[in-house]
Amino acid sequence: MEVLQVVADLVCTRRVEGMQAVSLRVLQSEQGVVSVASDPVGVPEGKWVFVTTGSAARFAMPDPLTITDLAICGIVDHWECAGNAQAVTPDAAAADTGARADVRAAP
Amino acid sequence: MEVLQVVADLVCTRRVEGMQAVSLRVLQSEQGVVSVASDPVGVPEGKWVFVTTGSAARFAMPDPLTITDLAICGIVDHWECAGNAQAVTPDAAAADTGARADVRAAP
Amino acid sequence: MEVLQVVADLVCTRRVEGMQAVSLRVLQSEQGVVSVASDPVGVPEGKWVFVTTGSAARFAMPDPLTITDLAICGIVDHWECAGNAQAVTPDAAAADTGARADVRAAP
Amino acid sequence: MEVLQVVADLVCTRRVEGMQAVSLRVLQSEQGVVSVASDPVGVPEGKWVFVTTGSAARFAMPDPLTITDLAICGIVDHWECAGNAQAVTPDAAAADTGARADVRAAP
Amino acid sequence: MEVLQVVADLVCTRRVEGMQAVSLRVLQSEQGVVSVASDPVGVPEGKWVFVTTGSAARFAMPDPLTITDLAICGIVDHWECAGNAQAVTPDAAAADTGARADVRAAP
Repeated sequence: MEVLQVVADLVCTRRVEGMQAVSLRVLQSEQGVVSVASDPVGVPEGKWVFVTTGSAARFAMPDPLTITDLAICGIVDHWECAGNAQAVTPDAAAADTGARADVRAAP
Repeated sequence: MEVLQVVADLVCTRRVEGMQAVSLRVLQSEQGVVSVASDPVGVPEGKWVFVTTGSAARFAMPDPLTITDLAICGIVDHWECAGNAQAVTPDAAAADTGARADVRAAP
Repeated sequence: MEVLQVVADLVCTRRVEGMQAVSLRVLQSEQGVVSVASDPVGVPEGKWVFVTTGSAARFAMPDPLTITDLAICGIVDHWECAGNAQAVTPDAAAADTGARADVRAAP
Repeated sequence: MEVLQVVADLVCTRRVEGMQAVSLRVLQSEQGVVSVASDPVGVPEGKWVFVTTGSAARFAMPDPLTITDLAICGIVDHWECAGNAQAVTPDAAAADTGARADVRAAP
Repeated sequence: MEVLQVVADLVCTRRVEGMQAVSLRVLQSEQGVVSVASDPVGVPEGKWVFVTTGSAARFAMPDPLTITDLAICGIVDHWECAGNAQAVTPDAAAADTGARADVRAAP
Protein backbone atom coordinates (compact mmCIF):
# COMPACT_ATOMS: atom_id res chain seq x y z
CA MET A 1 0.00 0.00 0.00
CA GLU A 2 1.11 3.52 -0.68
CA VAL A 3 0.29 6.92 0.77
CA LEU A 4 -0.82 9.45 -1.85
CA GLN A 5 -2.48 12.88 -1.87
CA VAL A 6 -5.85 13.64 -3.46
CA VAL A 7 -5.33 16.54 -5.87
CA ALA A 8 -8.47 16.62 -8.06
CA ASP A 9 -11.56 14.88 -9.39
CA LEU A 10 -11.42 13.11 -12.75
CA VAL A 11 -14.37 13.64 -15.08
CA CYS A 12 -15.10 10.71 -17.44
CA THR A 13 -18.56 10.75 -18.93
CA ARG A 14 -17.75 7.96 -21.39
CA ARG A 15 -16.61 4.80 -19.60
CA VAL A 16 -17.04 1.02 -19.79
CA GLU A 17 -20.18 -0.32 -18.13
CA GLY A 18 -18.35 -2.11 -15.30
CA MET A 19 -16.97 1.20 -13.99
CA GLN A 20 -20.52 2.23 -13.00
CA ALA A 21 -20.77 5.76 -11.57
CA VAL A 22 -17.86 5.33 -9.16
CA SER A 23 -15.99 8.49 -8.12
CA LEU A 24 -12.52 8.81 -9.64
CA ARG A 25 -9.80 10.87 -7.98
CA VAL A 26 -6.47 12.08 -9.29
CA LEU A 27 -3.76 11.21 -6.75
CA GLN A 28 -0.18 12.39 -6.55
CA SER A 29 2.75 10.78 -4.78
CA GLU A 30 5.38 12.70 -2.87
CA GLN A 31 7.59 12.38 -5.95
CA GLY A 32 4.88 13.92 -8.14
CA VAL A 33 3.77 10.73 -9.89
CA VAL A 34 0.10 10.97 -10.91
CA SER A 35 -2.40 8.11 -10.79
CA VAL A 36 -6.17 7.63 -10.71
CA ALA A 37 -8.07 5.76 -7.99
CA SER A 38 -11.67 4.80 -7.33
CA ASP A 39 -12.91 6.38 -4.11
CA PRO A 40 -15.39 4.44 -1.90
CA VAL A 41 -14.67 6.71 1.08
CA GLY A 42 -15.44 10.20 -0.24
CA VAL A 43 -12.19 12.03 0.48
CA PRO A 44 -11.89 15.84 0.41
CA GLU A 45 -9.22 17.29 -1.86
CA GLY A 46 -5.79 17.78 -0.26
CA LYS A 47 -6.04 14.81 2.14
CA TRP A 48 -3.39 12.09 2.25
CA VAL A 49 -4.89 8.63 1.71
CA PHE A 50 -3.53 5.10 1.52
CA VAL A 51 -4.45 2.97 -1.47
CA THR A 52 -4.41 -0.71 -2.42
CA THR A 53 -3.62 -2.06 -5.87
CA GLY A 54 -4.56 -5.12 -7.90
CA SER A 55 -7.39 -7.42 -6.92
CA ALA A 56 -7.41 -5.96 -3.39
CA ALA A 57 -8.66 -2.68 -4.91
CA ARG A 58 -11.85 -4.37 -6.08
CA PHE A 59 -12.49 -5.86 -2.63
CA ALA A 60 -12.25 -2.35 -1.17
CA MET A 61 -15.25 -1.18 -3.22
CA PRO A 62 -18.83 -1.66 -1.97
CA ASP A 63 -19.44 -3.74 -5.11
CA PRO A 64 -16.37 -6.01 -5.58
CA LEU A 65 -17.20 -6.38 -9.29
CA THR A 66 -16.35 -2.72 -9.88
CA ILE A 67 -13.53 -2.46 -12.43
CA THR A 68 -10.57 -0.82 -10.70
CA ASP A 69 -6.93 -1.57 -9.93
CA LEU A 70 -6.35 1.25 -7.42
CA ALA A 71 -8.77 2.10 -4.62
CA ILE A 72 -8.65 4.50 -1.70
CA CYS A 73 -8.84 2.50 1.55
CA GLY A 74 -8.63 5.17 4.21
CA ILE A 75 -7.58 8.65 5.20
CA VAL A 76 -4.23 9.03 6.96
CA ASP A 77 -4.73 11.09 10.13
CA HIS A 78 -1.51 13.01 9.58
CA TRP A 79 1.34 12.56 7.11
CA GLU A 80 4.74 14.14 6.86
CA CYS A 81 5.87 14.48 3.28
CA ALA A 82 9.29 12.84 3.65
CA GLY A 83 10.36 13.62 0.10
CA ASN A 84 10.11 17.34 0.69
CA ALA A 85 11.32 17.30 4.28
CA GLN A 86 14.84 18.34 3.37
CA ALA A 87 13.61 21.42 1.53
CA VAL A 88 11.34 22.56 4.34
CA THR A 89 12.45 25.71 6.12
CA PRO A 90 11.42 26.28 9.77
CA ASP A 91 8.76 28.82 8.69
CA ALA A 92 7.35 26.60 6.00
CA ALA A 93 7.34 23.69 8.45
CA ALA A 94 5.28 25.75 10.88
CA ALA A 95 2.84 26.62 8.13
CA ASP A 96 2.07 23.04 7.08
CA THR A 97 1.90 21.51 10.53
CA GLY A 98 -1.47 20.07 9.65
CA ALA A 99 0.13 17.81 7.05
CA ARG A 100 2.64 16.15 9.38
CA ALA A 101 2.43 12.47 10.16
CA ASP A 102 1.18 11.30 13.49
CA VAL A 103 3.77 8.53 13.53
CA ARG A 104 4.08 6.85 16.89
CA ALA A 105 6.81 4.52 18.03
CA ALA A 106 5.56 0.95 17.94
CA PRO A 107 4.87 -0.25 21.49
CA MET B 1 -5.31 3.40 -12.89
CA GLU B 2 -3.31 5.68 -15.11
CA VAL B 3 -4.12 8.34 -17.66
CA LEU B 4 -2.46 7.75 -21.04
CA GLN B 5 -2.79 9.11 -24.56
CA VAL B 6 -3.78 7.05 -27.62
CA VAL B 7 -1.08 7.58 -30.23
CA ALA B 8 -1.64 4.80 -32.80
CA ASP B 9 -3.17 1.47 -33.74
CA LEU B 10 -1.10 -1.71 -33.40
CA VAL B 11 -1.31 -4.19 -36.26
CA CYS B 12 -0.81 -7.84 -35.27
CA THR B 13 -2.10 -10.33 -37.79
CA ARG B 14 -0.45 -13.28 -36.01
CA ARG B 15 -1.65 -13.60 -32.42
CA VAL B 16 -2.66 -16.27 -29.90
CA GLU B 17 -6.23 -17.49 -30.18
CA GLY B 18 -7.39 -15.98 -26.89
CA MET B 19 -6.65 -12.46 -28.13
CA GLN B 20 -9.50 -12.80 -30.65
CA ALA B 21 -9.88 -9.81 -32.99
CA VAL B 22 -9.72 -7.23 -30.21
CA SER B 23 -8.48 -3.73 -31.14
CA LEU B 24 -4.99 -2.93 -29.84
CA ARG B 25 -3.88 0.66 -29.28
CA VAL B 26 -0.43 2.08 -28.65
CA LEU B 27 -0.60 4.40 -25.62
CA GLN B 28 1.94 6.88 -24.36
CA SER B 29 2.30 8.35 -20.88
CA GLU B 30 3.17 11.97 -20.20
CA GLN B 31 6.74 10.80 -19.64
CA GLY B 32 6.82 9.14 -23.07
CA VAL B 33 6.59 5.52 -21.87
CA VAL B 34 4.90 3.36 -24.51
CA SER B 35 2.48 0.51 -23.78
CA VAL B 36 -0.22 -1.46 -25.60
CA ALA B 37 -3.84 -1.77 -24.43
CA SER B 38 -6.95 -3.56 -25.61
CA ASP B 39 -9.70 -1.12 -26.49
CA PRO B 40 -13.36 -2.04 -25.77
CA VAL B 41 -14.47 1.59 -26.12
CA GLY B 42 -13.27 2.58 -29.60
CA VAL B 43 -11.18 5.65 -28.85
CA PRO B 44 -10.10 8.13 -31.54
CA GLU B 45 -6.36 8.80 -31.79
CA GLY B 46 -5.07 11.69 -29.67
CA LYS B 47 -7.58 11.24 -26.82
CA TRP B 48 -6.49 10.82 -23.19
CA VAL B 49 -7.90 7.64 -21.65
CA PHE B 50 -7.63 5.94 -18.29
CA VAL B 51 -6.63 2.30 -18.16
CA THR B 52 -6.76 -0.59 -15.70
CA THR B 53 -4.08 -3.26 -15.32
CA GLY B 54 -3.96 -6.89 -14.22
CA SER B 55 -7.08 -8.98 -13.83
CA ALA B 56 -9.27 -5.84 -13.82
CA ALA B 57 -8.30 -5.33 -17.47
CA ARG B 58 -10.01 -8.58 -18.43
CA PHE B 59 -13.19 -7.61 -16.61
CA ALA B 60 -13.28 -4.38 -18.62
CA MET B 61 -13.61 -6.32 -21.89
CA PRO B 62 -17.02 -7.45 -23.22
CA ASP B 63 -15.66 -11.03 -23.01
CA PRO B 64 -13.79 -11.35 -19.68
CA LEU B 65 -11.81 -14.31 -21.08
CA THR B 66 -10.01 -12.01 -23.51
CA ILE B 67 -6.24 -12.19 -22.89
CA THR B 68 -5.11 -8.73 -21.84
CA ASP B 69 -3.34 -7.04 -18.92
CA LEU B 70 -4.09 -3.43 -19.90
CA ALA B 71 -7.51 -2.21 -21.03
CA ILE B 72 -8.94 1.19 -21.83
CA CYS B 73 -11.81 1.91 -19.41
CA GLY B 74 -12.95 5.36 -20.44
CA ILE B 75 -12.16 8.65 -22.12
CA VAL B 76 -11.07 11.53 -19.92
CA ASP B 77 -13.19 14.59 -20.74
CA HIS B 78 -10.21 16.93 -20.47
CA TRP B 79 -6.65 16.38 -19.28
CA GLU B 80 -3.85 18.79 -18.60
CA CYS B 81 -0.49 17.24 -19.29
CA ALA B 82 1.16 18.04 -15.95
CA GLY B 83 4.58 16.83 -17.05
CA ASN B 84 4.75 19.38 -19.84
CA ALA B 85 3.03 22.20 -17.98
CA GLN B 86 6.26 23.91 -17.09
CA ALA B 87 7.32 24.11 -20.71
CA VAL B 88 4.04 25.56 -21.92
CA THR B 89 4.20 29.18 -23.05
CA PRO B 90 1.09 31.36 -22.81
CA ASP B 91 0.48 31.10 -26.57
CA ALA B 92 0.91 27.35 -26.60
CA ALA B 93 -1.34 27.09 -23.57
CA ALA B 94 -4.05 28.99 -25.41
CA ALA B 95 -3.68 26.73 -28.42
CA ASP B 96 -4.14 23.45 -26.54
CA THR B 97 -6.94 24.54 -24.24
CA GLY B 98 -8.95 21.59 -25.44
CA ALA B 99 -6.48 19.21 -23.83
CA ARG B 100 -6.64 20.70 -20.35
CA ALA B 101 -8.08 18.77 -17.47
CA ASP B 102 -11.55 19.55 -16.26
CA VAL B 103 -10.43 19.06 -12.69
CA ARG B 104 -12.96 20.26 -10.19
CA ALA B 105 -12.42 20.81 -6.52
CA ALA B 106 -13.99 17.99 -4.54
CA PRO B 107 -17.18 19.22 -2.88
CA MET C 1 0.97 -5.12 -22.64
CA GLU C 2 4.38 -4.19 -23.88
CA VAL C 3 6.24 -4.52 -27.15
CA LEU C 4 9.60 -6.29 -26.82
CA GLN C 5 12.15 -7.82 -29.17
CA VAL C 6 13.17 -11.49 -29.16
CA VAL C 7 16.95 -11.62 -28.83
CA ALA C 8 17.75 -15.24 -27.90
CA ASP C 9 16.61 -18.61 -26.61
CA LEU C 10 17.05 -19.45 -22.94
CA VAL C 11 18.36 -22.92 -22.11
CA CYS C 12 17.16 -24.32 -18.77
CA THR C 13 17.49 -28.07 -18.45
CA ARG C 14 16.70 -28.03 -14.70
CA ARG C 15 13.30 -26.48 -14.03
CA VAL C 16 10.24 -26.99 -11.81
CA GLU C 17 7.76 -29.57 -13.07
CA GLY C 18 5.00 -27.05 -13.82
CA MET C 19 7.17 -25.32 -16.42
CA GLN C 20 6.94 -28.41 -18.64
CA ALA C 21 8.99 -28.22 -21.84
CA VAL C 22 7.73 -24.76 -22.78
CA SER C 23 10.02 -22.62 -24.97
CA LEU C 24 11.64 -19.70 -23.15
CA ARG C 25 12.82 -16.61 -24.99
CA VAL C 26 15.04 -13.75 -23.84
CA LEU C 27 13.32 -10.46 -24.69
CA GLN C 28 14.71 -6.96 -24.66
CA SER C 29 12.84 -3.67 -24.43
CA GLU C 30 13.75 -0.57 -26.41
CA GLN C 31 15.51 0.67 -23.29
CA GLY C 32 17.60 -2.51 -23.10
CA VAL C 33 15.79 -4.12 -20.15
CA VAL C 34 16.02 -7.92 -20.37
CA SER C 35 13.23 -10.33 -19.41
CA VAL C 36 12.23 -13.94 -20.11
CA ALA C 37 8.90 -15.01 -21.61
CA SER C 38 7.22 -18.29 -22.45
CA ASP C 39 6.53 -18.58 -26.17
CA PRO C 40 3.35 -20.35 -27.38
CA VAL C 41 3.66 -18.80 -30.85
CA GLY C 42 7.15 -19.84 -32.01
CA VAL C 43 8.71 -16.50 -32.84
CA PRO C 44 11.90 -16.17 -34.91
CA GLU C 45 14.75 -14.22 -33.34
CA GLY C 46 14.78 -10.47 -34.05
CA LYS C 47 10.99 -10.09 -34.27
CA TRP C 48 9.09 -7.56 -32.15
CA VAL C 49 6.33 -9.20 -30.11
CA PHE C 50 3.76 -8.00 -27.60
CA VAL C 51 3.53 -9.75 -24.26
CA THR C 52 1.06 -10.04 -21.39
CA THR C 53 2.00 -10.25 -17.73
CA GLY C 54 0.50 -11.77 -14.60
CA SER C 55 -2.36 -14.25 -14.72
CA ALA C 56 -3.13 -13.26 -18.33
CA ALA C 57 0.20 -14.82 -19.32
CA ARG C 58 -1.02 -18.24 -18.19
CA PHE C 59 -4.23 -17.92 -20.17
CA ALA C 60 -2.15 -17.22 -23.29
CA MET C 61 -0.51 -20.66 -23.07
CA PRO C 62 -2.12 -23.75 -24.63
CA ASP C 63 -2.18 -25.25 -21.11
CA PRO C 64 -3.32 -22.47 -18.70
CA LEU C 65 -1.67 -24.32 -15.80
CA THR C 66 1.78 -23.61 -17.24
CA ILE C 67 3.83 -21.62 -14.72
CA THR C 68 4.65 -18.27 -16.31
CA ASP C 69 4.17 -14.57 -15.62
CA LEU C 70 5.17 -13.27 -19.07
CA ALA C 71 3.93 -14.80 -22.32
CA ILE C 72 4.29 -13.82 -25.96
CA CYS C 73 0.82 -13.14 -27.39
CA GLY C 74 1.55 -12.14 -30.97
CA ILE C 75 4.01 -10.81 -33.51
CA VAL C 76 3.84 -7.10 -34.32
CA ASP C 77 3.69 -6.66 -38.12
CA HIS C 78 6.06 -3.69 -38.01
CA TRP C 79 7.48 -1.64 -35.13
CA GLU C 80 9.41 1.59 -35.04
CA CYS C 81 11.79 1.72 -32.13
CA ALA C 82 10.67 5.07 -30.68
CA GLY C 83 13.43 5.16 -28.08
CA ASN C 84 16.13 5.22 -30.73
CA ALA C 85 14.26 7.40 -33.21
CA GLN C 86 16.10 10.55 -32.21
CA ALA C 87 19.47 8.95 -32.85
CA VAL C 88 18.52 7.61 -36.27
CA THR C 89 20.21 9.33 -39.19
CA PRO C 90 18.47 9.39 -42.59
CA ASP C 91 20.76 6.65 -43.92
CA ALA C 92 20.30 4.44 -40.89
CA ALA C 93 16.56 5.03 -41.06
CA ALA C 94 16.51 3.84 -44.65
CA ALA C 95 18.47 0.74 -43.69
CA ASP C 96 16.09 -0.44 -40.95
CA THR C 97 12.83 0.27 -42.74
CA GLY C 98 11.79 -3.29 -42.05
CA ALA C 99 11.65 -2.55 -38.33
CA ARG C 100 9.30 0.42 -38.58
CA ALA C 101 5.83 0.29 -37.13
CA ASP C 102 2.85 -0.03 -39.38
CA VAL C 103 0.92 2.42 -37.24
CA ARG C 104 -2.27 3.60 -38.84
CA ALA C 105 -4.40 6.52 -37.77
CA ALA C 106 -7.45 5.34 -35.92
CA PRO C 107 -10.50 5.68 -38.18
CA MET D 1 9.52 -10.63 -1.76
CA GLU D 2 11.49 -7.68 -0.52
CA VAL D 3 13.32 -6.83 2.69
CA LEU D 4 12.21 -3.54 4.23
CA GLN D 5 12.64 -1.76 7.57
CA VAL D 6 9.79 -0.84 9.92
CA VAL D 7 10.08 2.89 10.61
CA ALA D 8 6.72 3.88 12.15
CA ASP D 9 3.08 3.12 12.80
CA LEU D 10 0.41 4.56 10.51
CA VAL D 11 -2.69 6.00 12.17
CA CYS D 12 -5.89 5.78 10.08
CA THR D 13 -9.07 6.15 12.07
CA ARG D 14 -11.25 6.42 8.95
CA ARG D 15 -10.87 3.37 6.71
CA VAL D 16 -12.98 1.06 4.55
CA GLU D 17 -14.74 -1.73 6.42
CA GLY D 18 -12.69 -4.55 4.91
CA MET D 19 -9.49 -3.17 6.45
CA GLN D 20 -10.83 -4.08 9.91
CA ALA D 21 -8.58 -2.99 12.79
CA VAL D 22 -5.42 -4.43 11.25
CA SER D 23 -2.11 -2.82 12.27
CA LEU D 24 -0.50 -0.70 9.56
CA ARG D 25 3.25 -0.06 9.49
CA VAL D 26 5.28 2.42 7.49
CA LEU D 27 8.18 0.59 5.86
CA GLN D 28 11.25 1.96 4.14
CA SER D 29 13.52 0.29 1.62
CA GLU D 30 17.29 0.64 1.61
CA GLN D 31 16.85 3.23 -1.13
CA GLY D 32 14.45 5.24 1.05
CA VAL D 33 11.23 4.31 -0.76
CA VAL D 34 8.28 4.42 1.65
CA SER D 35 5.35 1.98 1.62
CA VAL D 36 2.62 0.80 3.99
CA ALA D 37 2.08 -2.84 5.00
CA SER D 38 -0.40 -4.74 7.14
CA ASP D 39 1.34 -6.45 10.04
CA PRO D 40 0.06 -9.86 11.25
CA VAL D 41 3.32 -10.52 13.15
CA GLY D 42 3.63 -7.53 15.49
CA VAL D 43 7.06 -6.22 14.60
CA PRO D 44 8.97 -3.73 16.80
CA GLU D 45 10.12 -0.53 15.12
CA GLY D 46 13.58 -0.64 13.52
CA LYS D 47 13.45 -4.34 12.58
CA TRP D 48 14.06 -5.54 9.02
CA VAL D 49 11.14 -7.63 7.72
CA PHE D 50 10.34 -9.38 4.45
CA VAL D 51 7.02 -8.67 2.79
CA THR D 52 4.82 -10.23 0.11
CA THR D 53 2.75 -8.31 -2.42
CA GLY D 54 -0.45 -8.90 -4.36
CA SER D 55 -2.85 -11.69 -3.52
CA ALA D 56 -0.16 -13.44 -1.43
CA ALA D 57 -0.38 -10.54 1.03
CA ARG D 58 -4.00 -11.43 1.82
CA PHE D 59 -3.09 -15.08 2.45
CA ALA D 60 -0.48 -13.93 4.97
CA MET D 61 -3.17 -12.35 7.17
CA PRO D 62 -5.06 -14.39 9.79
CA ASP D 63 -8.25 -13.46 7.88
CA PRO D 64 -7.50 -13.85 4.13
CA LEU D 65 -10.37 -11.48 3.31
CA THR D 66 -8.47 -8.57 4.84
CA ILE D 67 -7.93 -5.86 2.21
CA THR D 68 -4.19 -5.47 1.73
CA ASP D 69 -1.62 -5.68 -1.07
CA LEU D 70 1.52 -5.68 1.12
CA ALA D 71 1.88 -7.82 4.25
CA ILE D 72 4.76 -8.47 6.63
CA CYS D 73 5.59 -12.20 6.52
CA GLY D 74 8.49 -12.49 8.94
CA ILE D 75 11.37 -10.82 10.72
CA VAL D 76 14.83 -11.15 9.20
CA ASP D 77 17.26 -12.37 11.87
CA HIS D 78 20.01 -10.05 10.62
CA TRP D 79 20.29 -7.86 7.54
CA GLU D 80 23.19 -5.99 6.03
CA CYS D 81 22.05 -2.84 4.30
CA ALA D 82 23.77 -3.44 0.95
CA GLY D 83 22.79 -0.07 -0.47
CA ASN D 84 24.73 1.79 2.21
CA ALA D 85 27.61 -0.67 2.44
CA GLN D 86 29.90 1.40 0.26
CA ALA D 87 29.48 4.45 2.45
CA VAL D 88 30.14 2.59 5.68
CA THR D 89 33.42 3.41 7.37
CA PRO D 90 35.07 0.79 9.62
CA ASP D 91 33.93 2.62 12.76
CA ALA D 92 30.38 3.02 11.54
CA ALA D 93 30.35 -0.63 10.49
CA ALA D 94 31.35 -1.65 13.99
CA ALA D 95 28.60 0.48 15.45
CA ASP D 96 25.76 -1.11 13.45
CA THR D 97 26.92 -4.71 13.70
CA GLY D 98 23.49 -5.63 15.01
CA ALA D 99 21.95 -4.76 11.67
CA ARG D 100 24.16 -7.01 9.56
CA ALA D 101 22.75 -9.95 7.69
CA ASP D 102 23.33 -13.45 8.88
CA VAL D 103 23.80 -14.62 5.33
CA ARG D 104 25.20 -18.12 5.11
CA ALA D 105 26.67 -19.81 2.08
CA ALA D 106 24.19 -22.26 0.61
CA PRO D 107 25.27 -25.85 1.40
CA MET E 1 10.12 -13.80 -15.74
CA GLU E 2 13.51 -12.47 -14.85
CA VAL E 3 16.99 -13.92 -14.56
CA LEU E 4 18.64 -13.26 -11.19
CA GLN E 5 21.67 -14.56 -9.31
CA VAL E 6 21.52 -16.39 -5.97
CA VAL E 7 23.81 -14.52 -3.58
CA ALA E 8 22.88 -15.82 -0.09
CA ASP E 9 20.43 -17.60 2.18
CA LEU E 10 17.96 -15.57 4.24
CA VAL E 11 17.49 -16.61 7.85
CA CYS E 12 14.02 -15.89 9.28
CA THR E 13 13.19 -17.87 12.38
CA ARG E 14 10.03 -15.84 13.08
CA ARG E 15 7.60 -15.97 10.16
CA VAL E 16 3.87 -16.25 9.47
CA GLU E 17 2.51 -19.78 9.55
CA GLY E 18 1.73 -19.96 5.83
CA MET E 19 5.41 -19.56 4.95
CA GLN E 20 6.09 -23.00 6.45
CA ALA E 21 9.78 -24.00 6.46
CA VAL E 22 10.37 -23.02 2.85
CA SER E 23 13.94 -22.04 1.88
CA LEU E 24 14.40 -18.33 1.22
CA ARG E 25 17.20 -17.06 -1.01
CA VAL E 26 18.54 -13.55 -1.51
CA LEU E 27 18.72 -12.82 -5.24
CA GLN E 28 20.43 -9.98 -7.05
CA SER E 29 19.74 -8.63 -10.52
CA GLU E 30 22.45 -7.56 -12.94
CA GLN E 31 21.73 -3.99 -11.84
CA GLY E 32 22.29 -4.91 -8.20
CA VAL E 33 18.63 -4.85 -7.12
CA VAL E 34 18.09 -7.25 -4.20
CA SER E 35 14.99 -9.41 -3.72
CA VAL E 36 13.97 -12.54 -1.81
CA ALA E 37 12.53 -15.68 -3.41
CA SER E 38 11.24 -19.03 -2.18
CA ASP E 39 13.33 -21.88 -3.57
CA PRO E 40 11.61 -25.20 -4.46
CA VAL E 41 14.61 -26.31 -6.55
CA GLY E 42 17.54 -26.13 -4.12
CA VAL E 43 19.94 -23.86 -5.97
CA PRO E 44 23.63 -23.54 -5.02
CA GLU E 45 24.90 -20.03 -4.33
CA GLY E 46 26.25 -18.12 -7.34
CA LYS E 47 23.93 -19.75 -9.92
CA TRP E 48 21.73 -17.69 -12.24
CA VAL E 49 18.07 -18.66 -11.95
CA PHE E 50 14.85 -17.49 -13.54
CA VAL E 51 11.95 -16.55 -11.30
CA THR E 52 8.20 -16.02 -11.61
CA THR E 53 6.21 -13.38 -9.74
CA GLY E 54 2.65 -13.01 -8.48
CA SER E 55 0.24 -15.93 -8.33
CA ALA E 56 2.48 -17.96 -10.66
CA ALA E 57 5.08 -18.06 -7.86
CA ARG E 58 2.69 -20.00 -5.65
CA PHE E 59 1.99 -22.54 -8.39
CA ALA E 60 5.74 -23.15 -8.69
CA MET E 61 5.91 -24.39 -5.09
CA PRO E 62 5.21 -28.05 -4.21
CA ASP E 63 2.37 -26.74 -2.00
CA PRO E 64 0.54 -24.00 -3.96
CA LEU E 65 -0.79 -22.55 -0.70
CA THR E 66 2.72 -21.47 0.31
CA ILE E 67 2.80 -17.68 0.81
CA THR E 68 5.21 -16.25 -1.74
CA ASP E 69 5.23 -13.72 -4.57
CA LEU E 70 8.62 -14.67 -6.06
CA ALA E 71 9.72 -18.27 -6.67
CA ILE E 72 12.74 -19.82 -8.35
CA CYS E 73 11.55 -21.87 -11.35
CA GLY E 74 14.77 -23.20 -12.80
CA ILE E 75 18.52 -22.87 -13.19
CA VAL E 76 19.81 -21.15 -16.31
CA ASP E 77 22.46 -23.37 -17.94
CA HIS E 78 24.66 -20.39 -18.78
CA TRP E 79 24.08 -16.65 -18.55
CA GLU E 80 26.04 -13.71 -19.84
CA CYS E 81 25.66 -10.71 -17.60
CA ALA E 82 24.68 -8.16 -20.25
CA GLY E 83 24.76 -5.23 -17.85
CA ASN E 84 28.43 -5.72 -17.09
CA ALA E 85 29.45 -6.78 -20.58
CA GLN E 86 30.76 -3.36 -21.51
CA ALA E 87 33.07 -3.28 -18.50
CA VAL E 88 34.49 -6.74 -19.10
CA THR E 89 38.11 -6.82 -20.24
CA PRO E 90 39.33 -9.75 -22.37
CA ASP E 91 41.13 -11.29 -19.38
CA ALA E 92 38.15 -10.93 -17.08
CA ALA E 93 35.88 -12.33 -19.78
CA ALA E 94 38.09 -15.38 -20.08
CA ALA E 95 37.97 -15.87 -16.32
CA ASP E 96 34.19 -15.93 -16.03
CA THR E 97 33.42 -18.04 -19.08
CA GLY E 98 31.33 -20.28 -16.89
CA ALA E 99 28.84 -17.48 -16.35
CA ARG E 100 28.17 -16.80 -20.01
CA ALA E 101 24.81 -17.48 -21.55
CA ASP E 102 24.30 -20.42 -23.81
CA VAL E 103 22.08 -18.37 -26.07
CA ARG E 104 21.32 -20.08 -29.33
CA ALA E 105 19.80 -18.52 -32.40
CA ALA E 106 16.15 -19.50 -32.68
CA PRO E 107 15.74 -22.08 -35.46
